[in-house]
Formats: sequence, structure tokens, C-alpha cells
Amino acid sequence: KLIAILPGDGIGPEVTAEARRVLEALALPLAFEEAPVGGAAYRASGHPLPAETLDLARRADAILFGAVGDPAFDGLERALRPEQAILGLRKHLTTFANLRPARIFAGLEDASTLKPEVARAIDLVIVRELNGDVYFGDKGRRTTDAGLREGHDLMRYDEAEVRRIAHIGFQTAAKRRGKLCSVDKANVLETSQLWRDVVIEVAAEYPQVELTHMYVDNAAMQLVRNPGAFDTIVTGNLFGDILSDQASMCVGSIGMLPSASLDADAKGLYEPIHGSAPDIAGQGKANPCAAILSAAMLLRHSLALPEPADRIEAAVAAALATGVRTPDLGGTASTRTMGDAVLAAL
Amino acid sequence: KLIAILPGDGIGPEVTAEARRVLEALALPLAFEEAPVGGAAYRASGHPLPAETLDLARRADAILFGAVGDPAFDGLERALRPEQAILGLRKHLTTFANLRPARIFAGLEDASTLKPEVARAIDLVIVRELNGDVYFGDKGRRTTDAGLREGHDLMRYDEAEVRRIAHIGFQTAAKRRGKLCSVDKANVLETSQLWRDVVIEVAAEYPQVELTHMYVDNAAMQLVRNPGAFDTIVTGNLFGDILSDQASMCVGSIGMLPSASLDADAKGLYEPIHGSAPDIAGQGKANPCAAILSAAMLLRHSLALPEPADRIEAAVAAALATGVRTPDLGGTASTRTMGDAVLAAL
Ligand SMILES: CC(C)[C@H](C(=O)O)[C@@H](O)C(=O)O
Ligand SMILES: CC(C)[C@H](C(=O)O)[C@@H](O)C(=O)O
Repeated sequence: KLIAILPGDGIGPEVTAEARRVLEALALPLAFEEAPVGGAAYRASGHPLPAETLDLARRADAILFGAVGDPAFDGLERALRPEQAILGLRKHLTTFANLRPARIFAGLEDASTLKPEVARAIDLVIVRELNGDVYFGDKGRRTTDAGLREGHDLMRYDEAEVRRIAHIGFQTAAKRRGKLCSVDKANVLETSQLWRDVVIEVAAEYPQVELTHMYVDNAAMQLVRNPGAFDTIVTGNLFGDILSDQASMCVGSIGMLPSASLDADAKGLYEPIHGSAPDIAGQGKANPCAAILSAAMLLRHSLALPEPADRIEAAVAAALATGVRTPDLGGTASTRTMGDAVLAAL
Repeated sequence: KLIAILPGDGIGPEVTAEARRVLEALALPLAFEEAPVGGAAYRASGHPLPAETLDLARRADAILFGAVGDPAFDGLERALRPEQAILGLRKHLTTFANLRPARIFAGLEDASTLKPEVARAIDLVIVRELNGDVYFGDKGRRTTDAGLREGHDLMRYDEAEVRRIAHIGFQTAAKRRGKLCSVDKANVLETSQLWRDVVIEVAAEYPQVELTHMYVDNAAMQLVRNPGAFDTIVTGNLFGDILSDQASMCVGSIGMLPSASLDADAKGLYEPIHGSAPDIAGQGKANPCAAILSAAMLLRHSLALPEPADRIEAAVAAALATGVRTPDLGGTASTRTMGDAVLAAL
């Protein structure tokens, strides 16, 4: 099986290097091929998602992605900016289903700003739609008749887009505690009303799942008030972006959380939820756990190898249990030291 | 001075009644006039924002608003739903600047799910734009060429809309700790890029204010990780809706937080951040503090009466110090009992 490694910008190369070491240590029949992406690719070839990188991503059985984003390119036109690489990959590969689990590892309660009993109760998955919404609708700048600069981005969904992510939401909930919360802003947005209608239609096929609806502002509040009450959340691209980052911090550090982005055949792109973190890039301070746990999700979801996936997750828990902590968790261990600890526990 | 009281739906009437009692107790030269709004108005007259209600709102010097929203009308076409009343008032009155302060009252640390030292450090204001964004862009449902149902909502801002709220943001920050954080999603949205450009332009007029920019997903994360680091946040209508609800729960209960929505002349509509809470309506369980504190904001911002405003705020703090707590704060006091406690402390 071919694994594409796209390290990207900032701390991306540091954390994917550790994830690759962990995958290699498992001695599975895997081949690895690396390619540049994001600002790194733009520097090398003038485009954030070069044709060869996209080609590798298409050929590969699964993709391990680091992070993109580089403030050096803030002034660049949108199409050439590093972030376009991940948006382009998600769209070209039709990875519409983004799974973002959030659960606190034993011993990390100190790193969370939530009271320990609140943080400990968190065990949820956010199923975020990844191919539509205001991310991919018509967008642009123009000058109005009154001579004013204007910017616009069209938020939209059609029923087919909502239906396929709703199915993933219900299936995910069915394998967990059977509770699905659909998050929208149906009191204001037509897009959300369509979303809610279609989710309710799909619910008929999953009588074993209990469906609730919540407005996004209330969801952001409930994720602070009582995050343990959530099981599976299904939501659109924009609301999912915001809520998953919020949830990740509730469990102590965004440095611990992996994600999977899957297409209809479970081919997938795997990436830490955290970004390129330019402020700490190149200093060996990044937490590689999110990338390592993303590799575990890769084995489980795209290669149907649940057993080594479990081993990786157990090794991360065991490494943390020895007390090794990167700075985001309040410790001083380097990226490499944390990776070594996971390898030792494997 | 004429104060319009629009109690609205759910717990709106219960909490505005307590706020009115507090205002009356101050024996200021104020006249009060009440009118129905939201689902209550729809029931009475077939429209959530009847012409007489809008007329009263226009005539009044300031408006004390309860809440709107009633699940009984979920199936109704959008234009007739209770929420349209508050959206219509904001638009007709051009109250584009929504101020949402979040600060924890002494003794309420137990009610927050954040660790006490984190909750105690919170002292921020969210300045939310209220007349534009995806709330008011072209929206609708249609059937695509492929025969699929589709929903859309246009997100948009022009430079004049961004400029006027940016000024409020900088002015608010200048009166506080001099730090303004502008929140957008400029790595994905053209609307956000315009937003950022204009905020940077306006910054030139406020050299004493330190301006930073943050993506909305990161802001949702930082509000959990280190909320004490924020002073003033300026953001668009949708992001402000989400972040202000999140921030309100960080300080323990959304039942404590007031808001002001101001036009260019500081005429304003004042409302608790919480909604109509149909699940507890009519049971005397609602916390009236957010409405009472909204009345204080009304005196300060629209009537230029800072002294009685301070008195109300001190009375709420004093009432809490006696240990009276509504259920949202972990107590058993009724809405009326809480109101009585504030009146006694006045
Ligand atoms: C980098 C950015 C475009 C991206 C997004 O908004 O989707 C990131 O925040 C994420 O959540 O993966
Ligand atoms: C009731 C609803 C339309 C409203 C909004 O989204 O603005 C509410 O959530 C608020 O924040 O005042």
C-alpha cells in the first residue's frame, strides 16, 4: 500500500516525521512517498498544490498530511496561498467526511482549562462536511454601484451534499452511543433549513439513533457548559471548523487531536487538527501526538488495519503515562523525545 | 424619556418584568410603553413585528427587549417566524453595533465549568456587527438543474459597513485596556479579507490601540485556552453570534449577560444574550440578571445616566453576594426572588 506524506509548512514536517517513524516501526507492507504542499510547494514551484503532489495524492491509498499556512504569503492572491492546497486536496479527492474525535487522555486533565470532572466526561466526534458550504460557493471582490469595495462568499448546500454527510453522521453515532446532534443556524439561514429538512429525512433510516438539533451559537455554549453530553455532532463545513477547534481545546490541547477526511470509498487524508503554528516551527516544540494518532486513524479507516491502529493509540497513552509532555501539555519534552517515547511504548 | 418594553416570547416577559421594576424603583423621569413582539405578536396579530410595535420602537428613546423564539412556529415560513422580529428591529433601527461584555461576577466561579483562576481572569467585550453578513444577504431555496433542492445565503460586507463597526471596536478598546482583536476567516473568505483590509485602514486613526487578527476557529479555541488574554473583540454578525454565546458560558451562565445594540446616535435596543428558553418558560426559573443588567446598559449608553447604571450593577453584585441564586447558577431562587434581592440591594 502506498502512503503519500505531505508534510507542508511550519511544524508540519516535524510532526509528520514522527508519525512516519511510528508507521515504519510497525513493519507493515507500506511504501512511503513524500511531496511538497502549501507554502513549501509555492516556494519550490510557484504553486501551493503542484500537479505532481496532486497526482501522488490520487495514486496513494491514503495520505498523511502535516499542515499548511505561512504568514509570509498573507499578501498573496487567494488562489496561490498555502491554505488553497488543503482546500484543493479535499475538493479534488472528494473527501467530504471529516471525522474529528475529541476525548481526553488520562492524566491530561491539568492541561485543560475545564474543571477535571468536566474535561474527563468528554468523548465526542464531530462529523464535519468538507466539500461545500461558504468554503466553496462563488466568492469574490467587487466595487458596488456606490463605489464601495465589497466582498462576498456564497453559502450553499444541495440535498445530495447534505444527505451523504448525514449518513456518515448517523453511521458514526450508531457505532457509538447512538446519539446524533445536528448543528445548524436554521432560525436565520435557508441553507440550514435545507440541512435540517434533509437530516430529518435521513433519520428515518436509522431508527436506533436518537437525533437532536441545536443552533450553532447554543452548541458553542453547550460545548463549554456540558461537553460530556455530546456523542456525535454532524454539521457543515464552517460550523464544523469552529466547533472542532473549540472542542479540541476543551480536552487540553489541540496538539493531541487527529482527524480523518474520507471519500465515499473510505480513501482518506489524515491530518492533525492543529495548523502550521509558525510561531514554534523549527524549534522542536510541537506535539507530534496529533500526527501520530492521525496515522492510527489512517490504518483503521483506509487500510482496514484496526489492530496496529489500536497499538499506536495504546502507545501514545502509555508514553503520556510515563510523564513525557511537550510544551503545549505543560512539559518541556521535544517533538523527537515525545516521538521516541511513543516508539518505546509500541 | 420613553422606554419601549418588548417582552416577547418564552422567559422574555418574566425577565423584562424584573428589569422594569428595577428601572421604576430608581424614580427617574421615564415613561414605559409595552408592545408585543415575536411569536406573541404573531399569535395576536399575524405578524412577529407588527407596525405598531415597530412604530413604538422608533418613537422610544431606548428599547428594552426580552427574547423571541417559539418552537410552535418552527414550521412557519421564515418571514413570519418569531426570530424575524429581532432581525427586523436591528435592521429597521440600524442598530449595527452590538456590545456584549463578559465578566464573571464574584462568587460565581462555581457556576463556570472553567477552572476558577481561568474564569476569574475573563474581562472582555465582544463588538459584533449586527446589520450585515450572511444574516441579511440574498437568501432562498431553489431546485437545481439536476433537480435537487438547494438552499443558499449570501455572506457579504462592504467597506462602509466594516468601517463603522471597526470604529466602534477601536473606541471600545481605547476606553478599556487598549487591545483589539479582529476575528475573521481571511484564509478562506473574501468577505473576511475585505474585513481585515478595512480594519487595518481604520487602525491608523487609533495609534493607542494594539490591533491583532485571529481566525475564528482559533478564536473559539483561545476563548477556552486563555480567555483572560482578550480585551475587546470585533467581528462580524455570524462569528459574533457564536463567540459571544461561547464567552457567556465561560463566565458561568448566559443568564448573567446583557447586551446593547446601538445605532450611530447611540439610540439602542437592550436585551439579554440568552434566548426565550421555552423549556423553562412560565416556571419562574429564569435568571433576570441579564435583563436587569441590560437596563443598566440602557441608562449608560442611550440616556447618558452612568450613575444609576452603576447603582444597578452594584445591586446585582450585592444581591449575588447574599447568596441568592437562580437554577442556572446552581440555586433554587425564583425569577421574582432574584429580582426582589436586586431591588433590596438598590
Ligand atoms: C487551513 C484552513 C483552510 C482549514 C479550514 O478552515 O478548513 C483549517 O482551519 C482546518 O480546520 O482544517
Ligand atoms: C434569535 C437569533 C436570530 C439571534 C441571532 O442569531 O442574532 C440570537 O441568537 C442572538 O444572538 O441575538
